[in-house]
Amino acid sequence: MSEQQKEKMTIIFFSGTMDKAIAAMILATTAASMNMDVSIFFTFWGLNFLKKGRVYKGKSILQKMMEFMMPSSRSKLPLTSMNMMGLGPAMMKKLMESTKTPSLEEFFKMAKAFNVKIYACSTSCGIMGVDNSNMIEGVDGQMGAAAFLGEAQKSKINLFI
Amino acid sequence: MSEQQKEKMTIIFFSGTMDKAIAAMILATTAASMNMDVSIFFTFWGLNFLKKGRVYKGKSILQKMMEFMMPSSRSKLPLTSMNMMGLGPAMMKKLMESTKTPSLEEFFKMAKAFNVKIYACSTSCGIMGVDNSNMIEGVDGQMGAAAFLGEAQKSKINLFI
Amino acid sequence: MSEQQKEKMTIIFFSGTMDKAIAAMILATTAASMNMDVSIFFTFWGLNFLKKGRVYKGKSILQKMMEFMMPSSRSKLPLTSMNMMGLGPAMMKKLMESTKTPSLEEFFKMAKAFNVKIYACSTSCGIMGVDNSNMIEGVDGQMGAAAFLGEAQKSKINLFI
Repeated sequence: MSEQQKEKMTIIFFSGTMDKAIAAMILATTAASMNMDVSIFFTFWGLNFLKKGRVYKGKSILQKMMEFMMPSSRSKLPLTSMNMMGLGPAMMKKLMESTKTPSLEEFFKMAKAFNVKIYACSTSCGIMGVDNSNMIEGVDGQMGAAAFLGEAQKSKINLFI
Repeated sequence: MSEQQKEKMTIIFFSGTMDKAIAAMILATTAASMNMDVSIFFTFWGLNFLKKGRVYKGKSILQKMMEFMMPSSRSKLPLTSMNMMGLGPAMMKKLMESTKTPSLEEFFKMAKAFNVKIYACSTSCGIMGVDNSNMIEGVDGQMGAAAFLGEAQKSKINLFI
Repeated sequence: MSEQQKEKMTIIFFSGTMDKAIAAMILATTAASMNMDVSIFFTFWGLNFLKKGRVYKGKSILQKMMEFMMPSSRSKLPLTSMNMMGLGPAMMKKLMESTKTPSLEEFFKMAKAFNVKIYACSTSCGIMGVDNSNMIEGVDGQMGAAAFLGEAQKSKINLFI
Protein backbone atom coordinates (compact mmCIF):
# COMPACT_ATOMS: atom_id res chain seq x y z
CA MET A 1 0.00 0.00 0.00
CA SER A 2 1.40 3.44 -0.82
CA GLU A 3 2.14 6.04 1.86
CA GLN A 4 -0.92 7.99 0.70
CA GLN A 5 -3.32 5.12 1.28
CA LYS A 6 -2.13 4.14 4.75
CA GLU A 7 -4.48 4.98 7.59
CA LYS A 8 -3.13 7.63 9.93
CA MET A 9 -3.08 8.16 13.69
CA THR A 10 -1.94 11.38 15.39
CA ILE A 11 -1.24 11.95 19.07
CA ILE A 12 -0.85 15.31 20.79
CA PHE A 13 1.36 14.50 23.76
CA PHE A 14 0.86 17.30 26.28
CA SER A 15 1.30 15.89 29.75
CA GLY A 16 4.94 14.96 30.20
CA THR A 17 4.42 12.19 32.73
CA MET A 18 6.01 8.75 32.59
CA ASP A 19 2.79 6.78 32.69
CA LYS A 20 1.14 8.77 29.90
CA ALA A 21 4.38 8.54 27.87
CA ILE A 22 4.23 4.74 28.18
CA ALA A 23 0.58 4.76 27.07
CA ALA A 24 1.42 6.98 24.09
CA MET A 25 4.38 4.79 23.09
CA ILE A 26 2.36 1.55 23.35
CA LEU A 27 -0.44 3.02 21.22
CA ALA A 28 2.02 4.46 18.68
CA THR A 29 4.14 1.31 18.25
CA THR A 30 1.06 -0.91 18.10
CA ALA A 31 -0.64 1.26 15.47
CA ALA A 32 2.60 1.45 13.43
CA SER A 33 2.95 -2.35 13.60
CA MET A 34 -0.60 -2.54 12.18
CA ASN A 35 0.72 -0.57 9.19
CA MET A 36 -0.71 2.77 10.26
CA ASP A 37 1.18 5.99 9.69
CA VAL A 38 1.71 7.53 13.15
CA SER A 39 2.77 11.07 14.15
CA ILE A 40 3.25 12.38 17.70
CA PHE A 41 3.32 16.09 18.43
CA PHE A 42 5.12 16.84 21.70
CA THR A 43 3.87 20.04 23.28
CA PHE A 44 4.07 21.88 26.66
CA TRP A 45 5.27 19.49 29.39
CA GLY A 46 5.48 16.81 26.74
CA LEU A 47 8.60 18.54 25.44
CA ASN A 48 10.47 17.16 28.45
CA PHE A 49 10.21 13.76 26.79
CA LEU A 50 12.47 14.94 23.96
CA LYS A 51 15.17 16.70 26.00
CA LYS A 52 18.75 15.53 25.92
CA GLY A 53 19.54 17.15 29.25
CA ARG A 54 19.56 20.56 30.91
CA VAL A 55 20.80 23.50 28.83
CA TYR A 56 21.06 27.04 30.23
CA LYS A 57 23.02 28.77 27.47
CA GLY A 58 21.12 31.31 25.37
CA LYS A 59 18.08 31.31 27.67
CA SER A 60 16.35 34.14 29.51
CA ILE A 61 16.33 34.14 33.31
CA LEU A 62 12.76 32.84 33.34
CA GLN A 63 13.60 30.07 30.90
CA LYS A 64 16.63 29.15 33.01
CA MET A 65 14.45 28.90 36.13
CA MET A 66 12.02 26.74 34.21
CA GLU A 67 14.84 24.52 32.94
CA PHE A 68 16.12 24.12 36.48
CA MET A 69 12.73 23.16 37.89
CA MET A 70 11.65 20.70 35.22
CA PRO A 71 12.81 17.08 34.77
CA SER A 72 16.21 16.98 33.03
CA SER A 73 15.29 14.18 30.60
CA ARG A 74 12.72 11.52 29.89
CA SER A 75 14.30 9.11 32.37
CA LYS A 76 13.28 11.56 35.12
CA LEU A 77 9.60 12.03 34.24
CA PRO A 78 7.16 11.91 37.18
CA LEU A 79 3.95 9.86 37.33
CA THR A 80 0.51 11.45 36.79
CA SER A 81 -0.69 9.85 39.96
CA MET A 82 2.49 9.80 41.99
CA ASN A 83 1.09 11.40 45.11
CA MET A 84 -2.48 10.37 44.59
CA MET A 85 -1.78 6.70 44.27
CA GLY A 86 1.40 6.61 46.34
CA LEU A 87 3.38 5.03 43.54
CA GLY A 88 6.83 6.29 42.61
CA PRO A 89 8.31 6.19 39.10
CA ALA A 90 11.10 3.87 40.34
CA MET A 91 8.54 1.32 41.49
CA MET A 92 6.70 1.58 38.19
CA LYS A 93 9.94 0.91 36.30
CA LYS A 94 10.68 -2.14 38.49
CA LEU A 95 7.17 -3.46 38.00
CA MET A 96 7.44 -3.13 34.23
CA GLU A 97 10.82 -4.84 34.28
CA SER A 98 9.57 -7.71 36.42
CA THR A 99 6.62 -8.31 34.08
CA LYS A 100 8.90 -8.20 31.00
CA THR A 101 7.27 -5.01 29.71
CA PRO A 102 9.65 -2.99 27.50
CA SER A 103 10.99 0.21 29.10
CA LEU A 104 10.14 3.70 27.84
CA GLU A 105 13.56 3.78 26.10
CA GLU A 106 12.84 0.50 24.35
CA PHE A 107 9.38 1.63 23.27
CA PHE A 108 10.90 4.79 21.81
CA LYS A 109 13.44 2.76 19.83
CA MET A 110 10.66 0.50 18.54
CA ALA A 111 8.62 3.54 17.57
CA LYS A 112 11.53 4.89 15.52
CA ALA A 113 12.14 1.44 13.95
CA PHE A 114 8.47 1.47 12.90
CA ASN A 115 8.94 4.97 11.46
CA VAL A 116 6.69 6.80 13.95
CA LYS A 117 7.15 10.52 13.31
CA ILE A 118 8.22 12.59 16.32
CA TYR A 119 7.59 16.36 16.17
CA ALA A 120 8.31 19.07 18.74
CA CYS A 121 5.71 21.86 18.94
CA SER A 122 7.46 24.99 17.67
CA THR A 123 5.42 27.35 19.90
CA SER A 124 6.31 25.38 23.03
CA CYS A 125 9.97 25.31 21.95
CA GLY A 126 9.84 29.11 21.63
CA ILE A 127 8.24 29.62 25.06
CA MET A 128 10.64 27.28 26.81
CA GLY A 129 13.71 28.34 24.81
CA VAL A 130 14.41 24.82 23.50
CA ASP A 131 16.25 24.42 20.19
CA ASN A 132 16.98 21.36 18.05
CA SER A 133 20.50 20.90 19.44
CA ASN A 134 18.99 20.20 22.86
CA MET A 135 16.78 17.40 21.62
CA ILE A 136 17.45 13.66 21.55
CA GLU A 137 18.12 11.72 18.38
CA GLY A 138 15.01 10.56 16.57
CA VAL A 139 13.14 13.86 16.59
CA ASP A 140 11.91 14.64 13.07
CA GLY A 141 11.93 18.39 13.64
CA GLN A 142 9.73 21.19 14.94
CA MET A 143 6.22 21.74 13.65
CA GLY A 144 3.57 24.38 14.24
CA ALA A 145 -0.02 23.74 15.29
CA ALA A 146 -1.36 24.45 11.78
CA ALA A 147 0.87 21.85 10.10
CA PHE A 148 -0.02 19.33 12.78
CA LEU A 149 -3.76 19.95 12.47
CA GLY A 150 -3.30 19.37 8.73
CA GLU A 151 -2.03 15.88 9.62
CA ALA A 152 -4.87 15.38 12.09
CA GLN A 153 -7.44 16.20 9.40
CA LYS A 154 -6.18 13.25 7.38
CA SER A 155 -6.22 10.88 10.36
CA LYS A 156 -8.72 8.20 11.39
CA ILE A 157 -7.61 8.36 15.04
CA ASN A 158 -6.65 11.56 16.89
CA LEU A 159 -5.80 11.51 20.58
CA PHE A 160 -4.86 14.20 23.11
CA ILE A 161 -2.83 12.57 25.88
CA MET B 1 -30.00 -0.75 11.49
CA SER B 2 -27.57 -3.66 11.63
CA GLU B 3 -24.66 -3.77 14.07
CA GLN B 4 -22.28 -3.15 11.14
CA GLN B 5 -23.90 0.11 10.12
CA LYS B 6 -24.09 1.69 13.58
CA GLU B 7 -21.70 4.55 14.19
CA LYS B 8 -19.03 3.77 16.75
CA MET B 9 -17.40 5.62 19.63
CA THR B 10 -14.35 4.37 21.54
CA ILE B 11 -12.92 5.70 24.79
CA ILE B 12 -9.50 4.90 26.23
CA PHE B 13 -10.00 5.40 29.96
CA PHE B 14 -6.56 5.92 31.45
CA SER B 15 -6.86 8.19 34.44
CA GLY B 16 -8.73 6.33 37.15
CA THR B 17 -10.24 9.36 38.85
CA MET B 18 -13.87 9.71 39.90
CA ASP B 19 -14.57 12.90 37.98
CA LYS B 20 -13.14 11.56 34.72
CA ALA B 21 -15.03 8.28 35.25
CA ILE B 22 -18.27 10.26 35.54
CA ALA B 23 -17.44 12.16 32.35
CA ALA B 24 -16.66 8.89 30.52
CA MET B 25 -19.88 7.25 31.74
CA ILE B 26 -22.04 10.26 30.77
CA LEU B 27 -20.50 10.34 27.28
CA ALA B 28 -20.80 6.55 26.87
CA THR B 29 -24.42 6.24 28.02
CA THR B 30 -25.46 9.28 26.00
CA ALA B 31 -23.80 8.00 22.81
CA ALA B 32 -25.30 4.53 23.34
CA SER B 33 -28.76 6.05 23.84
CA MET B 34 -28.24 7.80 20.46
CA ASN B 35 -27.84 4.34 18.96
CA MET B 36 -24.05 4.44 18.73
CA ASP B 37 -21.95 1.37 19.39
CA VAL B 38 -19.66 2.27 22.33
CA SER B 39 -16.52 0.54 23.65
CA ILE B 40 -14.41 1.62 26.62
CA PHE B 41 -10.88 0.33 27.07
CA PHE B 42 -9.76 0.59 30.71
CA THR B 43 -6.00 0.92 31.00
CA PHE B 44 -3.37 1.86 33.62
CA TRP B 45 -5.02 3.64 36.59
CA GLY B 46 -8.33 3.19 34.80
CA LEU B 47 -8.17 -0.48 35.74
CA ASN B 48 -9.08 0.54 39.31
CA PHE B 49 -12.55 1.29 38.00
CA LEU B 50 -13.09 -2.41 37.24
CA LYS B 51 -11.74 -3.90 40.48
CA LYS B 52 -13.96 -5.93 42.76
CA GLY B 53 -11.71 -5.28 45.76
CA ARG B 54 -8.17 -5.89 46.89
CA VAL B 55 -6.58 -9.25 46.00
CA TYR B 56 -3.06 -10.21 47.12
CA LYS B 57 -2.98 -13.91 46.23
CA GLY B 58 -0.78 -14.89 43.30
CA LYS B 59 0.89 -11.49 43.09
CA SER B 60 4.55 -10.52 43.26
CA ILE B 61 5.75 -8.35 46.15
CA LEU B 62 5.75 -5.25 43.93
CA GLN B 63 2.24 -6.01 42.71
CA LYS B 64 1.11 -6.49 46.32
CA MET B 65 2.55 -3.12 47.30
CA MET B 66 0.80 -1.56 44.34
CA GLU B 67 -2.48 -3.24 45.25
CA PHE B 68 -2.15 -1.94 48.80
CA MET B 69 -1.48 1.64 47.72
CA MET B 70 -4.16 1.97 45.08
CA PRO B 71 -7.89 2.52 45.61
CA SER B 72 -9.61 -0.77 46.50
CA SER B 73 -12.58 -0.27 44.16
CA ARG B 74 -14.37 2.28 42.08
CA SER B 75 -16.25 3.68 45.05
CA LYS B 76 -12.88 4.85 46.40
CA LEU B 77 -11.55 6.69 43.35
CA PRO B 78 -9.95 10.09 44.01
CA LEU B 79 -10.71 13.32 42.15
CA THR B 80 -8.37 14.67 39.45
CA SER B 81 -8.43 18.03 41.14
CA MET B 82 -8.87 17.01 44.74
CA ASN B 83 -5.99 19.01 46.15
CA MET B 84 -5.93 21.65 43.47
CA MET B 85 -9.53 22.61 43.82
CA GLY B 86 -9.99 21.63 47.45
CA LEU B 87 -12.92 19.39 46.69
CA GLY B 88 -13.17 15.90 48.15
CA PRO B 89 -14.85 12.94 46.43
CA ALA B 90 -17.42 12.73 49.26
CA MET B 91 -18.53 16.29 48.59
CA MET B 92 -18.74 15.60 44.88
CA LYS B 93 -20.96 12.58 45.55
CA LYS B 94 -23.24 14.65 47.82
CA LEU B 95 -23.46 17.40 45.25
CA MET B 96 -24.44 14.95 42.52
CA GLU B 97 -27.03 13.38 44.80
CA SER B 98 -28.53 16.74 45.75
CA THR B 99 -28.87 17.73 42.08
CA LYS B 100 -30.45 14.36 41.18
CA THR B 101 -27.48 13.35 39.02
CA PRO B 102 -27.12 9.55 38.81
CA SER B 103 -24.19 8.10 40.76
CA LEU B 104 -21.19 6.43 39.12
CA GLU B 105 -22.75 3.03 39.99
CA GLU B 106 -26.02 4.00 38.33
CA PHE B 107 -24.25 5.29 35.23
CA PHE B 108 -22.35 2.01 34.96
CA LYS B 109 -25.60 0.03 35.17
CA MET B 110 -27.13 2.24 32.49
CA ALA B 111 -24.06 1.75 30.31
CA LYS B 112 -24.43 -2.03 30.56
CA ALA B 113 -28.19 -1.80 29.90
CA PHE B 114 -27.32 0.13 26.72
CA ASN B 115 -24.79 -2.56 25.79
CA VAL B 116 -21.67 -0.40 26.19
CA LYS B 117 -18.68 -2.75 25.85
CA ILE B 118 -16.22 -2.71 28.77
CA TYR B 119 -12.71 -4.03 28.11
CA ALA B 120 -9.70 -4.28 30.42
CA CYS B 121 -6.31 -3.62 28.79
CA SER B 122 -4.48 -6.94 28.83
CA THR B 123 -1.02 -5.33 29.12
CA SER B 124 -2.09 -3.31 32.18
CA CYS B 125 -3.65 -6.43 33.71
CA GLY B 126 -0.31 -8.22 33.23
CA ILE B 127 1.73 -5.41 34.80
CA MET B 128 -0.58 -5.04 37.76
CA GLY B 129 -1.26 -8.77 38.18
CA VAL B 130 -5.03 -8.43 37.76
CA ASP B 131 -7.00 -11.40 36.44
CA ASN B 132 -10.64 -11.74 35.39
CA SER B 133 -11.74 -13.19 38.72
CA ASN B 134 -10.82 -9.91 40.40
CA MET B 135 -13.01 -7.81 38.13
CA ILE B 136 -16.58 -6.65 38.65
CA GLU B 137 -19.54 -8.03 36.74
CA GLY B 138 -20.14 -6.37 33.40
CA VAL B 139 -16.58 -6.54 32.08
CA ASP B 140 -16.60 -8.02 28.58
CA GLY B 141 -13.07 -9.38 28.89
CA GLN B 142 -9.46 -8.37 28.35
CA MET B 143 -8.25 -6.91 25.09
CA GLY B 144 -4.85 -5.90 23.72
CA ALA B 145 -3.95 -2.52 22.25
CA ALA B 146 -3.98 -3.89 18.68
CA ALA B 147 -7.53 -5.23 18.93
CA PHE B 148 -8.68 -1.97 20.49
CA LEU B 149 -7.02 0.18 17.82
CA GLY B 150 -8.84 -1.99 15.28
CA GLU B 151 -12.10 -0.84 16.91
CA ALA B 152 -10.87 2.77 16.99
CA GLN B 153 -10.15 2.66 13.25
CA LYS B 154 -13.83 1.95 12.61
CA SER B 155 -15.01 4.72 14.97
CA LYS B 156 -16.28 8.22 14.26
CA ILE B 157 -15.35 9.44 17.74
CA ASN B 158 -12.21 8.39 19.65
CA LEU B 159 -11.37 9.91 23.02
CA PHE B 160 -8.48 9.49 25.46
CA ILE B 161 -9.73 10.36 28.95
CA MET C 1 -17.32 27.00 0.90
CA SER C 2 -20.68 26.75 2.62
CA GLU C 3 -20.99 26.21 6.36
CA GLN C 4 -22.16 22.63 5.69
CA GLN C 5 -19.05 21.66 3.79
CA LYS C 6 -16.49 23.03 6.25
CA GLU C 7 -14.52 20.45 8.15
CA LYS C 8 -15.27 20.40 11.86
CA MET C 9 -13.23 20.06 15.06
CA THR C 10 -14.74 19.58 18.53
CA ILE C 11 -12.99 19.82 21.88
CA ILE C 12 -14.35 18.62 25.21
CA PHE C 13 -12.59 20.85 27.72
CA PHE C 14 -12.76 19.07 31.06
CA SER C 15 -9.69 19.95 33.06
CA GLY C 16 -9.91 23.59 34.02
CA THR C 17 -6.18 24.26 34.23
CA MET C 18 -4.39 27.22 32.67
CA ASP C 19 -1.92 25.20 30.63
CA LYS C 20 -4.58 22.96 29.11
CA ALA C 21 -6.76 26.04 28.44
CA ILE C 22 -3.86 27.58 26.48
CA ALA C 23 -3.42 24.35 24.50
CA ALA C 24 -7.16 24.23 23.74
CA MET C 25 -7.22 27.88 22.66
CA ILE C 26 -4.15 27.52 20.40
CA LEU C 27 -5.65 24.44 18.72
CA ALA C 28 -9.07 26.09 18.37
CA THR C 29 -7.84 29.41 16.93
CA THR C 30 -5.40 27.64 14.59
CA ALA C 31 -8.07 25.25 13.28
CA ALA C 32 -10.53 28.12 12.84
CA SER C 33 -7.91 30.14 10.94
CA MET C 34 -7.56 27.10 8.63
CA ASN C 35 -11.27 27.51 7.86
CA MET C 36 -12.45 24.69 10.13
CA ASP C 37 -15.66 24.97 12.09
CA VAL C 38 -14.67 24.65 15.78
CA SER C 39 -16.82 23.98 18.88
CA ILE C 40 -15.60 23.71 22.47
CA PHE C 41 -17.73 22.09 25.14
CA PHE C 42 -16.73 23.24 28.64
CA THR C 43 -17.56 20.65 31.26
CA PHE C 44 -16.73 19.88 34.92
CA TRP C 45 -13.68 21.93 36.07
CA GLY C 46 -13.59 23.40 32.57
CA LEU C 47 -16.62 25.46 33.53
CA ASN C 48 -14.31 27.65 35.64
CA PHE C 49 -12.93 29.00 32.38
CA LEU C 50 -16.30 30.59 31.59
CA LYS C 51 -17.05 32.13 34.99
CA LYS C 52 -17.44 35.86 35.37
CA GLY C 53 -16.65 35.71 39.08
CA ARG C 54 -17.97 34.17 42.28
CA VAL C 55 -21.75 34.04 42.73
CA TYR C 56 -23.39 32.66 45.88
CA LYS C 57 -27.01 33.73 45.36
CA GLY C 58 -29.50 30.97 44.59
CA LYS C 59 -27.06 28.21 45.39
CA SER C 60 -27.29 25.35 47.86
CA ILE C 61 -24.84 25.18 50.75
CA LEU C 62 -22.77 22.55 48.94
CA GLN C 63 -22.70 24.62 45.77
CA LYS C 64 -21.65 27.65 47.81
CA MET C 65 -18.78 25.71 49.37
CA MET C 66 -17.75 24.57 45.94
CA GLU C 67 -17.91 28.11 44.57
CA PHE C 68 -15.75 29.30 47.45
CA MET C 69 -13.11 26.64 46.93
CA MET C 70 -12.79 26.85 43.16
CA PRO C 71 -10.94 29.51 41.13
CA SER C 72 -13.07 32.66 40.82
CA SER C 73 -12.40 33.18 37.11
CA ARG C 74 -10.19 32.11 34.26
CA SER C 75 -7.42 34.47 35.28
CA LYS C 76 -7.02 32.37 38.44
CA LEU C 77 -6.75 28.91 36.90
CA PRO C 78 -4.00 26.67 38.32
CA LEU C 79 -1.46 24.71 36.28
CA THR C 80 -1.83 20.95 35.69
CA SER C 81 1.70 20.45 36.82
CA MET C 82 2.07 23.23 39.33
CA ASN C 83 3.41 21.13 42.19
CA MET C 84 4.88 18.41 40.09
CA MET C 85 7.00 20.67 37.98
CA GLY C 86 7.40 23.48 40.49
CA LEU C 87 6.10 26.11 38.11
CA GLY C 88 3.52 28.67 39.18
CA PRO C 89 0.86 30.17 36.93
CA ALA C 90 2.39 33.64 37.44
CA MET C 91 5.70 32.46 36.07
CA MET C 92 3.98 30.82 33.12
CA LYS C 93 2.20 34.09 32.32
CA LYS C 94 5.50 36.02 32.50
CA LEU C 95 7.22 33.50 30.29
CA MET C 96 4.48 33.73 27.67
CA GLU C 97 4.62 37.52 27.79
CA SER C 98 8.40 37.60 27.42
CA THR C 99 8.25 35.33 24.37
CA LYS C 100 5.46 37.41 22.78
CA THR C 101 2.94 34.57 23.09
CA PRO C 102 -0.65 35.89 23.31
CA SER C 103 -2.28 35.60 26.74
CA LEU C 104 -5.24 33.35 27.48
CA GLU C 105 -7.50 36.43 27.26
CA GLU C 106 -6.12 37.33 23.85
CA PHE C 107 -6.50 33.77 22.58
CA PHE C 108 -10.13 33.76 23.72
CA LYS C 109 -10.80 37.02 21.86
CA MET C 110 -9.16 35.59 18.73
CA ALA C 111 -11.25 32.44 19.06
CA LYS C 112 -14.44 34.52 19.15
CA ALA C 113 -13.24 36.65 16.22
CA PHE C 114 -12.78 33.39 14.27
CA ASN C 115 -16.28 32.32 15.30
CA VAL C 116 -15.23 29.40 17.54
CA LYS C 117 -18.38 28.18 19.28
CA ILE C 118 -18.22 28.11 23.10
CA TYR C 119 -20.73 25.89 24.92
CA ALA C 120 -21.21 25.22 28.64
CA CYS C 121 -22.20 21.64 29.54
CA SER C 122 -25.74 21.87 30.88
CA THR C 123 -25.31 18.91 33.28
CA SER C 124 -22.20 20.47 34.84
CA CYS C 125 -24.02 23.82 35.12
CA GLY C 126 -26.81 22.01 36.98
CA ILE C 127 -24.47 20.23 39.39
CA MET C 128 -22.47 23.36 40.15
CA GLY C 129 -25.45 25.72 40.18
CA VAL C 130 -24.10 27.95 37.41
CA ASP C 131 -26.54 29.90 35.24
CA ASN C 132 -26.02 31.99 32.09
CA SER C 133 -25.91 35.28 34.00
CA ASN C 134 -22.74 34.13 35.75
CA MET C 135 -20.89 33.43 32.53
CA ILE C 136 -18.55 35.68 30.57
CA GLU C 137 -19.43 37.28 27.26
CA GLY C 138 -18.80 35.07 24.25
CA VAL C 139 -20.50 31.93 25.56
CA ASP C 140 -22.91 30.62 22.91
CA GLY C 141 -25.16 28.95 25.47
CA GLN C 142 -25.59 25.70 27.37
CA MET C 143 -25.66 22.35 25.58
CA GLY C 144 -26.30 18.78 26.68
CA ALA C 145 -24.01 15.82 26.02
CA ALA C 146 -26.34 14.43 23.33
CA ALA C 147 -26.32 17.63 21.28
CA PHE C 148 -22.56 17.87 21.61
CA LEU C 149 -22.00 14.26 20.56
CA GLY C 150 -24.16 15.05 17.52
CA GLU C 151 -21.56 17.72 16.62
CA ALA C 152 -18.72 15.31 17.34
CA GLN C 153 -20.20 12.73 14.95
CA LYS C 154 -19.85 15.25 12.13
CA SER C 155 -16.26 16.17 13.06
CA LYS C 156 -12.96 15.09 11.56
CA ILE C 157 -11.08 15.87 14.78
CA ASN C 158 -12.41 15.23 18.30
CA LEU C 159 -10.28 15.88 21.37
CA PHE C 160 -10.83 15.43 25.11
CA ILE C 161 -8.55 17.87 26.94
